[in-house]
Amino acid sequence: MEGKRTHTLDEIAALVGGRVIGDGAFRVSGIRSLEEATKEDISPFTDRRYLGVVQTTCAGALIVGKETPAFPRHQIVADRPDLACAKTAGLFIPQASGFEGIHGQSFIHESSRLGRDVTVHPGVYVGEDSVIGDRVVLYPGVFVGDRVRIGDETVVHPNVSILHDCSVGKAVILHAGTVIGADGFGFVRDGGRSVKIPQIGTVRIDDGVEVGANCAIDRGALGTTWIKRGVKMDNLIQIAHNVVVGEGTIIVAQTGVSGSVEIGRGVVVGGQVGIGDHVSVGDRAMIGSQSGVAKSIESGEMVSGTPAVPHRLWLKTSRLLTRLPVLNDRVRSLEKKVDALVRRLDGRA
Amino acid sequence: MEGKRTHTLDEIAALVGGRVIGDGAFRVSGIRSLEEATKEDISPFTDRRYLGVVQTTCAGALIVGKETPAFPRHQIVADRPDLACAKTAGLFIPQASGFEGIHGQSFIHESSRLGRDVTVHPGVYVGEDSVIGDRVVLYPGVFVGDRVRIGDETVVHPNVSILHDCSVGKAVILHAGTVIGADGFGFVRDGGRSVKIPQIGTVRIDDGVEVGANCAIDRGALGTTWIKRGVKMDNLIQIAHNVVVGEGTIIVAQTGVSGSVEIGRGVVVGGQVGIGDHVSVGDRAMIGSQSGVAKSIESGEMVSGTPAVPHRLWLKTSRLLTRLPVLNDRVRSLEKKVDALVRRLDGRA
Amino acid sequence: MEGKRTHTLDEIAALVGGRVIGDGAFRVSGIRSLEEATKEDISPFTDRRYLGVVQTTCAGALIVGKETPAFPRHQIVADRPDLACAKTAGLFIPQASGFEGIHGQSFIHESSRLGRDVTVHPGVYVGEDSVIGDRVVLYPGVFVGDRVRIGDETVVHPNVSILHDCSVGKAVILHAGTVIGADGFGFVRDGGRSVKIPQIGTVRIDDGVEVGANCAIDRGALGTTWIKRGVKMDNLIQIAHNVVVGEGTIIVAQTGVSGSVEIGRGVVVGGQVGIGDHVSVGDRAMIGSQSGVAKSIESGEMVSGTPAVPHRLWLKTSRLLTRLPVLNDRVRSLEKKVDALVRRLDGRA
Repeated sequence: MEGKRTHTLDEIAALVGGRVIGDGAFRVSGIRSLEEATKEDISPFTDRRYLGVVQTTCAGALIVGKETPAFPRHQIVADRPDLACAKTAGLFIPQASGFEGIHGQSFIHESSRLGRDVTVHPGVYVGEDSVIGDRVVLYPGVFVGDRVRIGDETVVHPNVSILHDCSVGKAVILHAGTVIGADGFGFVRDGGRSVKIPQIGTVRIDDGVEVGANCAIDRGALGTTWIKRGVKMDNLIQIAHNVVVGEGTIIVAQTGVSGSVEIGRGVVVGGQVGIGDHVSVGDRAMIGSQSGVAKSIESGEMVSGTPAVPHRLWLKTSRLLTRLPVLNDRVRSLEKKVDALVRRLDGRA
Repeated sequence: MEGKRTHTLDEIAALVGGRVIGDGAFRVSGIRSLEEATKEDISPFTDRRYLGVVQTTCAGALIVGKETPAFPRHQIVADRPDLACAKTAGLFIPQASGFEGIHGQSFIHESSRLGRDVTVHPGVYVGEDSVIGDRVVLYPGVFVGDRVRIGDETVVHPNVSILHDCSVGKAVILHAGTVIGADGFGFVRDGGRSVKIPQIGTVRIDDGVEVGANCAIDRGALGTTWIKRGVKMDNLIQIAHNVVVGEGTIIVAQTGVSGSVEIGRGVVVGGQVGIGDHVSVGDRAMIGSQSGVAKSIESGEMVSGTPAVPHRLWLKTSRLLTRLPVLNDRVRSLEKKVDALVRRLDGRA
Repeated sequence: MEGKRTHTLDEIAALVGGRVIGDGAFRVSGIRSLEEATKEDISPFTDRRYLGVVQTTCAGALIVGKETPAFPRHQIVADRPDLACAKTAGLFIPQASGFEGIHGQSFIHESSRLGRDVTVHPGVYVGEDSVIGDRVVLYPGVFVGDRVRIGDETVVHPNVSILHDCSVGKAVILHAGTVIGADGFGFVRDGGRSVKIPQIGTVRIDDGVEVGANCAIDRGALGTTWIKRGVKMDNLIQIAHNVVVGEGTIIVAQTGVSGSVEIGRGVVVGGQVGIGDHVSVGDRAMIGSQSGVAKSIESGEMVSGTPAVPHRLWLKTSRLLTRLPVLNDRVRSLEKKVDALVRRLDGRA
């Protein structure tokens, strides 16, 4: 812990485009939550609900959206405090492993080409005719198959498998344990047996994509499974063969996307969602957590539930769902009243 | 890309048992979808809905179920075009890594026996007293524990872990990141603590099984977790201890099967299904995606939903579910009408 | 199979605190289920529903809760037969790999310190400034990042990744393929782009925790993701950044816990549950399988369903759900009757 990095509030304000209220020469050595901060830390205060905590926090400084008199020490005021915090956190990322270059306890096929300043840790495997860009980092246990392309500055975390013929763009982050390019799930029945349809397509992952831990993105059956620029995927997600995910789309953990689904750009897919095969999801659509999507969704639509319906309808429906016992009682009571009415009328007839 | 493999239509027709309409000497260098094909490719045309695309595709040839005059070039007509396409795709599988034999950067315990023509890549570990069949391929990062048996021609993809005492049959495919034989989840409470029940059973995987990427198949608590011949499992599937999965059953991605479940033969389990413990699922049953199965299912039954009910009932129910607000309004309107009727009758009484 | 371990019933009875009925000198060589046992095995009989099987089992001996005259051979009677079986199974755990010490085909950074009697298998990587406790076992393919702490007697199974700055307590078991300390899923929007919020927190796993295969436990964004003492997690579970899981809590397979959720102690979370972000779950609460929890849950509460409601209400509701078609018919029938009544009254008015 010797030589801890510190930064002055003036430095941070310059980085995030904010202004200091208090002492710009004040130094912080980390960024932590209001609850965990010490007086050497700066803390985010981006949610007014935590105003009470602001009065008791030990933080030496705050990043705020507007001046906060309740806090007695230094502040940096920024238009976008969330963005300012993200940039500030970037100053305090723990240093990555010092090792650089190609470690001898790795295997790189002689036919593959590596860019400049590539880090290959022990236990990495790179197959034939692959091309690895500049400043790529391959962590231990990474498997890179034959004829794979990896763009500049991409980071591949431990025990990731990238199978043959797949391509990964620049500045991509693949988190540990993820599998890119396993065979899609395709069989044809032949007299009671399931005959494997050879999966001879590939996976293409564009620049700036981030894929979480222990995901599986299958190769296309014939064509390409394509994750476009800037897509962000959480952990344990399943992407089946021939899926296309549009630019900037966000997919939360444990969601499953079936074969040949097309997801547009800027879509937000919640966690544990299932999307049925050949479904198309329009740009900027939003799909609530745990939804089951069997039919295509228009651009900008917001859906929830299983089967997925417009989010507002789902809210109504799910409220009524828990009142089903009451509804049932109301219907029974009506039946009695109506029978009584019929009897009254019949009796007088 | 030098030396691209090409095949004549006559060769392909012979392989798939079809007949050529057009020039049997025409050569193709790949199989691709109608949309992606070039004039050097053959394309599947198995779904009449894509008839429009047939008229615009660049494909040099088609595989079809019956003669298709709308397509101006060569055709192969086959009784089972889906099966014919699967066989044709097999001709164009990208060549696997050239390496063969036992690489020096692997570890194989001296007490283990390897069959003929086994490929052991760098970074493989094989423990004590294990037996690996002929022509098995172990990719980098594969862990094979002690006393494991692996049958002939099985392919174990990168970073798969097969723990001690498990057995894997012939011609099995285990996709990357999958774990065979981790401990089942079993504890007994003892004064507020969870005491681990040692999981001393094993996993047995029979011939011709395929398991997707990042699955987990736990060992039995005492007995055996058993995946029978020809079972096909997609990615990210959880199989708990002592489960039995019958011959030829298909399980789609992200499904979870709880302890001691018995699934029959020829069953189809959709994606993201949950099956509760000790449930039994009869032969040829079908379970819809995202279902929650808490009770046993008869042979041939088709169920959906949570809790799972016969599929037709679920279709009805789920349609009515989204009309709950309407139903609620109808009941309210009835209540008003009935109250009005009662008042009318009372007023006149 | 030479030198099979055997134990006398007297030895087992002493271990489990039971008493022998029959011959205490009788030797068993394993513990198996009633169905699979041979006469050399002892079997658990803890569920009276299997009384029929007791009469036909080949088992040489039983562990029972009370004397069982229907079984003609030896018995060990124990107050807690489940606990007795767990202890007995412990006698028959297959021997772990004989290898001990630090294998040369591993990489351990010179700045890291290892305790006594540590086993480091081939293909292990340990980064800078890490500290590994006594008798720890690291299986092949394990990645330990920089500045990681691992407590005494912890077992890390194959292909597990523990990323930088995380800490793992004593006597912890991490099953194969699990990822500890991948980045949490945090982005801020900036003009259509998703800007990564650097995840500079850590993961802390306390003593006695067990984590299943292919799980993902993300590091905190700023603070700590904390799995407390004695927590037991099944396979394929997602724990997002800044989650806290209380002592002794049990989480079943494929459940996903969103960011900043706080789960109390002694909670039981079923399989395939989703818990929304910032939710708090009280001590000893129980959450049914496949539930979707969007709101906080009180201590001791038992909830089920999506959205999660009290378990009893869910039971009622889900029964009524499948009777929706009937309810719909009843409402239609009421509407007709009421219309008829209105007409009758109008006609006579």
